[in-house]
Amino acid sequence: MGAVSEPKPILMLGLPKGSLEESTQSLFAKAGWKITTSSRSYKPVIDDPELDGRFVRAQEVSRYVEHGFFDCGLTGYDWIQENSSDVVEVCDLVYSRASVRKSRWVLCVPEASPIQRPEDLAGKRVATELVNTVKRYFADRKIPIEVEFSWGATEVKVPDLVDAIVDITETGSSLRANKLRIVDTLLETNTKFIANRRSWADPVKRKKIETIALLLRGALEAETKVGLKMNAPKRALDAILQAIPALRNPTISPLSHPDWIALETIIDESVVREILPRLKELGAEGIVEYPLNKVVY
Amino acid sequence: MGAVSEPKPILMLGLPKGSLEESTQSLFAKAGWKITTSSRSYKPVIDDPELDGRFVRAQEVSRYVEHGFFDCGLTGYDWIQENSSDVVEVCDLVYSRASVRKSRWVLCVPEASPIQRPEDLAGKRVATELVNTVKRYFADRKIPIEVEFSWGATEVKVPDLVDAIVDITETGSSLRANKLRIVDTLLETNTKFIANRRSWADPVKRKKIETIALLLRGALEAETKVGLKMNAPKRALDAILQAIPALRNPTISPLSHPDWIALETIIDESVVREILPRLKELGAEGIVEYPLNKVVY
Amino acid sequence: MGAVSEPKPILMLGLPKGSLEESTQSLFAKAGWKITTSSRSYKPVIDDPELDGRFVRAQEVSRYVEHGFFDCGLTGYDWIQENSSDVVEVCDLVYSRASVRKSRWVLCVPEASPIQRPEDLAGKRVATELVNTVKRYFADRKIPIEVEFSWGATEVKVPDLVDAIVDITETGSSLRANKLRIVDTLLETNTKFIANRRSWADPVKRKKIETIALLLRGALEAETKVGLKMNAPKRALDAILQAIPALRNPTISPLSHPDWIALETIIDESVVREILPRLKELGAEGIVEYPLNKVVY
Amino acid sequence: MGAVSEPKPILMLGLPKGSLEESTQSLFAKAGWKITTSSRSYKPVIDDPELDGRFVRAQEVSRYVEHGFFDCGLTGYDWIQENSSDVVEVCDLVYSRASVRKSRWVLCVPEASPIQRPEDLAGKRVATELVNTVKRYFADRKIPIEVEFSWGATEVKVPDLVDAIVDITETGSSLRANKLRIVDTLLETNTKFIANRRSWADPVKRKKIETIALLLRGALEAETKVGLKMNAPKRALDAILQAIPALRNPTISPLSHPDWIALETIIDESVVREILPRLKELGAEGIVEYPLNKVVY
Amino acid sequence: MGAVSEPKPILMLGLPKGSLEESTQSLFAKAGWKITTSSRSYKPVIDDPELDGRFVRAQEVSRYVEHGFFDCGLTGYDWIQENSSDVVEVCDLVYSRASVRKSRWVLCVPEASPIQRPEDLAGKRVATELVNTVKRYFADRKIPIEVEFSWGATEVKVPDLVDAIVDITETGSSLRANKLRIVDTLLETNTKFIANRRSWADPVKRKKIETIALLLRGALEAETKVGLKMNAPKRALDAILQAIPALRNPTISPLSHPDWIALETIIDESVVREILPRLKELGAEGIVEYPLNKVVY
Amino acid sequence: MGAVSEPKPILMLGLPKGSLEESTQSLFAKAGWKITTSSRSYKPVIDDPELDGRFVRAQEVSRYVEHGFFDCGLTGYDWIQENSSDVVEVCDLVYSRASVRKSRWVLCVPEASPIQRPEDLAGKRVATELVNTVKRYFADRKIPIEVEFSWGATEVKVPDLVDAIVDITETGSSLRANKLRIVDTLLETNTKFIANRRSWADPVKRKKIETIALLLRGALEAETKVGLKMNAPKRALDAILQAIPALRNPTISPLSHPDWIALETIIDESVVREILPRLKELGAEGIVEYPLNKVVY
Repeated sequence: MGAVSEPKPILMLGLPKGSLEESTQSLFAKAGWKITTSSRSYKPVIDDPELDGRFVRAQEVSRYVEHGFFDCGLTGYDWIQENSSDVVEVCDLVYSRASVRKSRWVLCVPEASPIQRPEDLAGKRVATELVNTVKRYFADRKIPIEVEFSWGATEVKVPDLVDAIVDITETGSSLRANKLRIVDTLLETNTKFIANRRSWADPVKRKKIETIALLLRGALEAETKVGLKMNAPKRALDAILQAIPALRNPTISPLSHPDWIALETIIDESVVREILPRLKELGAEGIVEYPLNKVVY
Repeated sequence: MGAVSEPKPILMLGLPKGSLEESTQSLFAKAGWKITTSSRSYKPVIDDPELDGRFVRAQEVSRYVEHGFFDCGLTGYDWIQENSSDVVEVCDLVYSRASVRKSRWVLCVPEASPIQRPEDLAGKRVATELVNTVKRYFADRKIPIEVEFSWGATEVKVPDLVDAIVDITETGSSLRANKLRIVDTLLETNTKFIANRRSWADPVKRKKIETIALLLRGALEAETKVGLKMNAPKRALDAILQAIPALRNPTISPLSHPDWIALETIIDESVVREILPRLKELGAEGIVEYPLNKVVY
Repeated sequence: MGAVSEPKPILMLGLPKGSLEESTQSLFAKAGWKITTSSRSYKPVIDDPELDGRFVRAQEVSRYVEHGFFDCGLTGYDWIQENSSDVVEVCDLVYSRASVRKSRWVLCVPEASPIQRPEDLAGKRVATELVNTVKRYFADRKIPIEVEFSWGATEVKVPDLVDAIVDITETGSSLRANKLRIVDTLLETNTKFIANRRSWADPVKRKKIETIALLLRGALEAETKVGLKMNAPKRALDAILQAIPALRNPTISPLSHPDWIALETIIDESVVREILPRLKELGAEGIVEYPLNKVVY
Repeated sequence: MGAVSEPKPILMLGLPKGSLEESTQSLFAKAGWKITTSSRSYKPVIDDPELDGRFVRAQEVSRYVEHGFFDCGLTGYDWIQENSSDVVEVCDLVYSRASVRKSRWVLCVPEASPIQRPEDLAGKRVATELVNTVKRYFADRKIPIEVEFSWGATEVKVPDLVDAIVDITETGSSLRANKLRIVDTLLETNTKFIANRRSWADPVKRKKIETIALLLRGALEAETKVGLKMNAPKRALDAILQAIPALRNPTISPLSHPDWIALETIIDESVVREILPRLKELGAEGIVEYPLNKVVY
Repeated sequence: MGAVSEPKPILMLGLPKGSLEESTQSLFAKAGWKITTSSRSYKPVIDDPELDGRFVRAQEVSRYVEHGFFDCGLTGYDWIQENSSDVVEVCDLVYSRASVRKSRWVLCVPEASPIQRPEDLAGKRVATELVNTVKRYFADRKIPIEVEFSWGATEVKVPDLVDAIVDITETGSSLRANKLRIVDTLLETNTKFIANRRSWADPVKRKKIETIALLLRGALEAETKVGLKMNAPKRALDAILQAIPALRNPTISPLSHPDWIALETIIDESVVREILPRLKELGAEGIVEYPLNKVVY
Repeated sequence: MGAVSEPKPILMLGLPKGSLEESTQSLFAKAGWKITTSSRSYKPVIDDPELDGRFVRAQEVSRYVEHGFFDCGLTGYDWIQENSSDVVEVCDLVYSRASVRKSRWVLCVPEASPIQRPEDLAGKRVATELVNTVKRYFADRKIPIEVEFSWGATEVKVPDLVDAIVDITETGSSLRANKLRIVDTLLETNTKFIANRRSWADPVKRKKIETIALLLRGALEAETKVGLKMNAPKRALDAILQAIPALRNPTISPLSHPDWIALETIIDESVVREILPRLKELGAEGIVEYPLNKVVY
């Protein structure tokens, strides 16, 4: 549609299809890229002529990044390990909120099972989606065991179909609902932004990869931060800054009234409920919290 | 999950189940507490180890706060009255927007009914969910009447099943749709944050209750406020401040250009549409309105 | 409901029903007016006693504005043209984002059709919803053709039912899916805010119309803008301002530390992904992007 | 997909898009043809190599049947009249249930309007989707009036935008909700199966059209009929047949017990609730009602 | 709409609003009455001029039937008991399937509670929706206890808010999910069709009530029955009838082939999976199962 | 819940989770078994004490049937082959409708690819979910190729990520939408009911397996059949039976009128639209089609 020659894309992005698809699009939107998928095509449209991309299953992203079909991509640490993919881990893409636990791949048995340690599984069978990782785990411990690929619904297979499973869990609630007991944790995982080694060595590609990483992280950072501004009597400033370490680096501006100053800072949303009452006690007024789109330190 | 001993909750919160459930969770989220309910359990998870809670029907919150099963809770003024609950009313949780009317419990009859005043109902029957309140209302007026508990759909019961009803209404549109006429208003109501008397007397609990109240109100306040910032020529400042009383207490900062200053303030969203054209006329430039999460004066 | 005499509305607004209805309500909400429609009535409730309104089909708004039943209204440029309505075009209501193409009414034939120019359609039949405009187009070119009103699903009518169609398209994807080829563009269109000529001549009405226009545009403007603030070393200021033209007019405030200054500005969201990495390279710190509700220059 | 030459379709069917689309597919399914539409194409797939078809708006079906683009089609009588289409009306496709009123196009004014008869509208304006029909109606009565095409939501245009409307109604409830009063009925309408005159004259096409008509009507008929079977003592047969005229033509089969016979018949579902208690009183046993797919007398 | 005088309804029906509303409408539809509710009105439309009706809460139906506002109605046995309503129980409306247990109101405590018998609750508190019934239960056993009305979510109140609850359960799965233990069953309940005593004494009303009861039960009966027909060699008939008692009363018809007969009968759907293989072994052929709408013996 | 000892299940059923889950439950329901799954547990409840079951992925059913964890199960022929499972194929579970093509696993390349035959893929890479089957296919043809496991969305991988794919297709429409060309068909597949060899050798288990097979097939058969009954003049019988072979084996019953007979038969629904008009021409009357639940010859 038009004779204008479009610039050739610099990067081919590998994006995870399935459960992470929508959150990936949402994260890129916050970072500044609109990734549109249509029901008629699996090729996303990205509003940046320097970027092209494909959605494939999260399990496969690292394989195709390693092979160079993708210059970079998003996937979980678990699948990088499972595929033994030789890629550059550019950055983590995790929420900084302390209360969010990483997802873990855990070895589980029924609550009532006599199995207490991995060794007790010698000669038994375990089902998992992460076959290579589980085989390595037991081989390292010299425990002979049959590891069987599970196509899904792994948690319902014990004890009828297999003796133990290795499955992923975030809060453990699904395991509890299936009356399973955790014997060991094999792997902690979270989303990573990874790059192909040759693409990373190419200065033009690397610069673009780093720009994307900067903005993805800036958007993620902003999800757990808020802006806070207030007016305070000058004499209260020291008390405020001492009492509230989280405020240690505020922007302080003069106000027209010489005895008052304006403070402005960025803090973790999770501490606002503690800090705000303290600020009021210390004499701050007109305290306002506002939302952020991106935060880059 | 882990041997770390968790701090004992300081407060047990009573939360209203049903029509207010979602908005209550949303309000607490804005205030800074994430209340998660799962379909498998009615016990909410609150991301604050000092808080535990339960969802019960709004009708019952004040009863259990009075008895001390809850230290504090959210419920309507109507049900505090109906239950004659002896509790501390910590604060109102209402939107400050002038145009929003409070909900009212009203005595209604069919449009065509000959009944014009409460007295005309002597010897008749009235259905309501608020039996005690309605009985008191007629007893105070010495009008003999049969008051019958209505399990719901009260507005369709007149004139076939009862002679009048006492039902809740916000805009009156449901009453009009059922061709009902309001004879009298018995009670105005809105959401209250209430506390048990003994909990309120305990300094640790009271401090926590006040913190919650401060942040709930800060979040509610922010829903009807916006931030406004602009640059203005210094010479226009007085005119601006005089012409626009709502701006009377702005943060005024110097700019690099000596003839200009930056103004920033918080105002009611509802007056922006009047103020913004005036500001432009008076010489303000680069006027920007931005959203707020919390406002505490 | 109450004996208080309400002020008489100053303006009657014509609002587009159908596909634009929800986005119109959302745009007015951002501008500061809450337009509520109920399923029981087509008369919207507007929270401004000076405004009344009606939802009619977008095709009819300009007709009723011209006749004076509406003082002003929102509709597309296409339907103003189709109806040859004599109205005041107060302002465009379009997104300023460069990547968004305007919608176009295009003359299309099947990909495999021998028709290459409008002239090739002489003696043929074309279906369209925009009958008058299409007739004028062919009359201007002195091409004899039968133009037939299409009630919808126009794109499936070629080649079985007609030889060509004139239909609206934004990205062309629906045309490509139906294997159609564009022969010519007849009209570009976007949403306009229009006014009746007599209402525009009335100073009171015109002032209110201009206020609405100012705020609608302020809200639209804010959708593609974001606020950006950062701290920077004073010595980097010139480099920053030179390197990044989009930042040319920032609010610059002193900070307590004499070597640092605070910069704040409003920029297009679409350039943030380029500017933010540059700012960091040039020494800016604590870069924060935040969302806006309205922007008025 | 395959070199087998498919038979050329005998008939091109015109099918109504929009509100009738789903019920049309459902009716054809009951009649024995599966019409599949995909989101990727407006061309339906019909599981009969002798049939091809297109979905167009109900308003246009008769026009394209008349022109011969369709051999036959389904549309309303109202649009055949509005388009003055010269087509064969093969059969009605209406439910035989007595309680279902036909849809009517009615001339309406606001309840409070002084207009009582069509004549009172002389010199006024009326809005309608059925412009030609309404013009003819007033011309026949020599009443001068301006008739204006309404793109929809016609019922909300009175009295603000026009003086009267002509709109379609089934039960009148939407008119009452908009506080409109019916002045006159212009047209009753229901779905018709129509054919092109030349197609009807072609024996092969006509035979296929008649087959479709037979099965569509057989399917419609079955929607209001049920099968009823029972055993009865022979001596009660006359009483049963006399008492219940609807049973006058049953299939009567002998049973192994010589004093009893089996009756089986097809009756209107709507009379079962009256007939069944009577049958039991008269001695029938084992009365069973079962559903039907098609009924052809 | 029309001057025809409509017949006065004979009966006023009380219908249960809420969880039973949809299934009640569906049951009446199968029985032969279409009950239509609109979002604009709580008065249902019933396609039988002899019937009028109202939807009220199931808890209130028996009260209004007793008072004579309704001639008859549908409600649960539990609420008839709770209200101590003096009404005629016309018939049960339950599914005959053996595997469906009736709903039960059960006294529950937490699994870990020391309470084992009702006596152990002396001096404690119990919450329930069925206050009168529970008070009677404990009074009969001379156990002093405080019974408190629960507005809902009763199962989450133990042990935090009360010591025990009396709640309704069908399968017990919700109780198990809340880790409750059943101490005793107070009441079994199912849906009843009830009548006012005066209406039942009126021959015209009673006849209509009985007709409705007959058809409601005929429709319910059909939900668990199917029709079965087959051909069988005459010589196998005795073996078939002996082997399969459920077939003991079939309709047997002669066929054109003198050695074969046709059998037809109505049986419980739940036994088909056992009977069908047996029938085939015994020589039956062309065995067909078909669905039923109503069965009246 | 109760001290009654329940019979031990005779069979453990393997049921396919995922895309086939709902249709499997629906098929068993038609056959006479209610399989209930709850969101709280993956163990289905089956209303037959002789049956227990588990839902696992279709890919795994044959593996667990072979190992004896399941006595029998439903899965596709493709996965039996892929797993090289040694199981008894009890019966096919396919719709008999001629127009329904079996699903096929096909080797595909992009439309524009130079690859025309499997041999052209020597040295290339192919992605598939059916790795073993594809490896065998190329090994049999001595074509060296890299076969890579695809986790899904296989059809979007060519040509960017791999050279060819082997994917499943029913109608080919998804392949066409992705602009793929079929090079060869590797496997046709449909659902099979399979059994473990030891279970099949056990007479009690085998009898139960055969009963299930009989009823599943009876239910499937009924989906494409309908019952047809009519009255006909005796003299027309031969003509009817000759003209319409599908009616060759009807049940013929005498009627009370000696010149007429009743015909009843079961025929393919797909031929009704041809047969019904013929029957009417030949003198049949009162032709009725009714639905069936099960058909066992």
